[in-house]
Amino acid sequence: MSTERDSIGIGLLGAGVVGGGVARILREKADIYARQIGCPLELKRVLVRDVAKQRDVEIAPSLLTTDPSAVLDDPSIQMVIEVMGGEEPAFAYLKRALTAGKFVVTGNKEVMAKHGGELLRLAREHNVDLLYEASVGGGIPIIAPLKRDLLANDILSVTAIINGTTNYILTAMSKGGGSFADALAKAQELGFAEPDPTNDIEGIDAAYKLCILATLSFHADIMPADVYREGITKLDARDFEYAREMGYALKLLAIARRRGDGDGVGDGIELRVHPALVPQDQLLANVDGVLNAVEIEGDLMSRVLFQGPGAGSLPTTSAVVGDALDAAVSISNNVYWPHSFRRESGVKPLPIDQCQSRYYLRIRVVDEPGVLARIAGKLADGNISIASVIQKELDGARGGGEGNAEIVIMTHEALEADIQRALGDIRALAGVAAVEQMIRVRP
Amino acid sequence: MSTERDSIGIGLLGAGVVGGGVARILREKADIYARQIGCPLELKRVLVRDVAKQRDVEIAPSLLTTDPSAVLDDPSIQMVIEVMGGEEPAFAYLKRALTAGKFVVTGNKEVMAKHGGELLRLAREHNVDLLYEASVGGGIPIIAPLKRDLLANDILSVTAIINGTTNYILTAMSKGGGSFADALAKAQELGFAEPDPTNDIEGIDAAYKLCILATLSFHADIMPADVYREGITKLDARDFEYAREMGYALKLLAIARRRGDGDGVGDGIELRVHPALVPQDQLLANVDGVLNAVEIEGDLMSRVLFQGPGAGSLPTTSAVVGDALDAAVSISNNVYWPHSFRRESGVKPLPIDQCQSRYYLRIRVVDEPGVLARIAGKLADGNISIASVIQKELDGARGGGEGNAEIVIMTHEALEADIQRALGDIRALAGVAAVEQMIRVRP
Repeated sequence: MSTERDSIGIGLLGAGVVGGGVARILREKADIYARQIGCPLELKRVLVRDVAKQRDVEIAPSLLTTDPSAVLDDPSIQMVIEVMGGEEPAFAYLKRALTAGKFVVTGNKEVMAKHGGELLRLAREHNVDLLYEASVGGGIPIIAPLKRDLLANDILSVTAIINGTTNYILTAMSKGGGSFADALAKAQELGFAEPDPTNDIEGIDAAYKLCILATLSFHADIMPADVYREGITKLDARDFEYAREMGYALKLLAIARRRGDGDGVGDGIELRVHPALVPQDQLLANVDGVLNAVEIEGDLMSRVLFQGPGAGSLPTTSAVVGDALDAAVSISNNVYWPHSFRRESGVKPLPIDQCQSRYYLRIRVVDEPGVLARIAGKLADGNISIASVIQKELDGARGGGEGNAEIVIMTHEALEADIQRALGDIRALAGVAAVEQMIRVRP
Repeated sequence: MSTERDSIGIGLLGAGVVGGGVARILREKADIYARQIGCPLELKRVLVRDVAKQRDVEIAPSLLTTDPSAVLDDPSIQMVIEVMGGEEPAFAYLKRALTAGKFVVTGNKEVMAKHGGELLRLAREHNVDLLYEASVGGGIPIIAPLKRDLLANDILSVTAIINGTTNYILTAMSKGGGSFADALAKAQELGFAEPDPTNDIEGIDAAYKLCILATLSFHADIMPADVYREGITKLDARDFEYAREMGYALKLLAIARRRGDGDGVGDGIELRVHPALVPQDQLLANVDGVLNAVEIEGDLMSRVLFQGPGAGSLPTTSAVVGDALDAAVSISNNVYWPHSFRRESGVKPLPIDQCQSRYYLRIRVVDEPGVLARIAGKLADGNISIASVIQKELDGARGGGEGNAEIVIMTHEALEADIQRALGDIRALAGVAAVEQMIRVRP
């Protein structure tokens, strides 16, 4: 089935940190890869914004172009690697590449989250593959296992730490005890957070990645609008202290979870990105710094965890070039591997109101008789039972606002709608100064 | 490229715990899998030793046979799934199946460790695939990622907990403080250890799995004889106490590690299975009970960890059926996926003498002036430097033998040959009753 071939032509869209890494590794490991594939991979063209820009990686000037057609319309280019990021023009370029019958490798989470379904259908129509391992979890193989190795399973849940910036910040707050603002500033200083960190700290990046994982796991096109999202900006050093005291770590989790058996009320898929308490004895609680981890639960395999570097030039290059080698085997052997593209009907994203969790509540109160009883009463009215309570006096430094005591409550599992209603009632109680925090516990 | 096909015929060799699970899942999920593949998977024949035997899983009696030819010579069977285990007759059957042009799925670590190279070559000759995800790590996808997703990397090391029985025993000893014999008895009682536990507790099973991982990682046919092997039977409750005191957990590790740059003295691959000290802050130290974990280090991706259930009917079924679905896509689409089968020359397994580690030494001495100095002197003579020392008096219960004090030494990295020579010298010293323990630290 093997065909003699001089080389496989590659076009690269983007020559930033990852693109530069890809170009360098394709050059440095050219001999090994050629032995592996049976013919050399040849980088033919690199699309950049500015040909004259100084680059860390040496790319022959003759390869650089600012004209996308020089890559997308060149018939000697059989594979396009897109590492420019952002929705446009990347999405338009990927459509053109697939329509032209080129294999595509991308690390673009935003495009895959928003348009993955369309691009994958386009790839099938043109008998080529669209590979996107680098879009989630950097160097961790997670897309391929979900696509193929775990296919015997019904996936029950995905629980993931998939944003290195926020995990770095939360780890720093947990170990150093400082404020969110301090930890963010430190992360920016070290290059772990962008000058505008919104995408990371508001959970937008994690939500894109969750869409990609959930789409594969539940065989439905899950879109960013389906994901409930809450960032890490409101976490306080006190929450880390209380969490530790109760045996938990605080992480930004991306969760997709099947609920019910498909025919009852409340059946569907929970999809949410928010800070969460994780029991300290679970591996996810010990994934620190810029590491990522994805835990997949299936009906057969139970829980499998994948952990590793979620970002960085070399780990991302590892995923991109791994996909490129996969595509090269297809091209070199004239085989198109028809990945399963099953879409199940009736997979319904659940709004956050219908999600279930245990809840951590931190409430500032006036230290007077009966406050705790009234709060407990409102929870009981909402059918929410209490697992544990800590009440502490606030010292001067902490008691800046109204109220001089703090009550921390851990509930048993409850419906989000019930909790929200109860919190509304609690806010209106005499002696309650503020409901200062509500954090979900990982399911 | 898709061909209309009525069904894909499957022959099953073995109907034990895993075989029964495979038969059951193929039946229960028949509709889902048919949608996935585009045509049904049909279990046609099941080879068993005793047709009349009572089974947990209902298999139609007409499918059962004791005649291997009824499976291996049936042209309507395109895929053979082997879950009988053991070297023979499994190896002979697999050769026959591949030679007959059937796709093969196996979970047989012994056959793959001893004859994987031959079987994979046979598969290539006949344009079929041989898949063996279930041979290592139960439900954890690890073979496929090594074969494909991590291919852009030069693999530097594999460090794995890949035997659930020993990990269960070591976890019990660590948490309960009991003896090896007690923990083994408990494991046998719970069904986590076989009546004859030799294969597990002597590291034979782990060495088979390491051969499979190292063969894929280093592109060389690594054989069981290449692996240094030491079981867990000599570990004492005291070693767990000292380990904890020094910040380590005690695990049975399977290690394959590239040394040097390929042209110096001492270059090659370290291959070893032995108890090892693992720093408590590493994820591997926290993989407890019957869980398995494999850590892979690559030049691009740095360290990625895969963790999950290493055994059990359902997780193993997950891996076997996942491979079967993969093979079914190939069969159904008439595509043979030519996996890279690169073999590098000059990959040299290193004997244990040439391996490097830090070492934990526990030495029983007579508590008299100068003993520690003499021991330290012998280590210095061997160019071994000491990282830390604990010396304790032995109480009556512990001081049963000669000598009434115990010295525990942690060395810096040293060559195994140097340590062995130094230990020989130390044993001969006045005041030294016995070198009671030597445990390597994970590299």
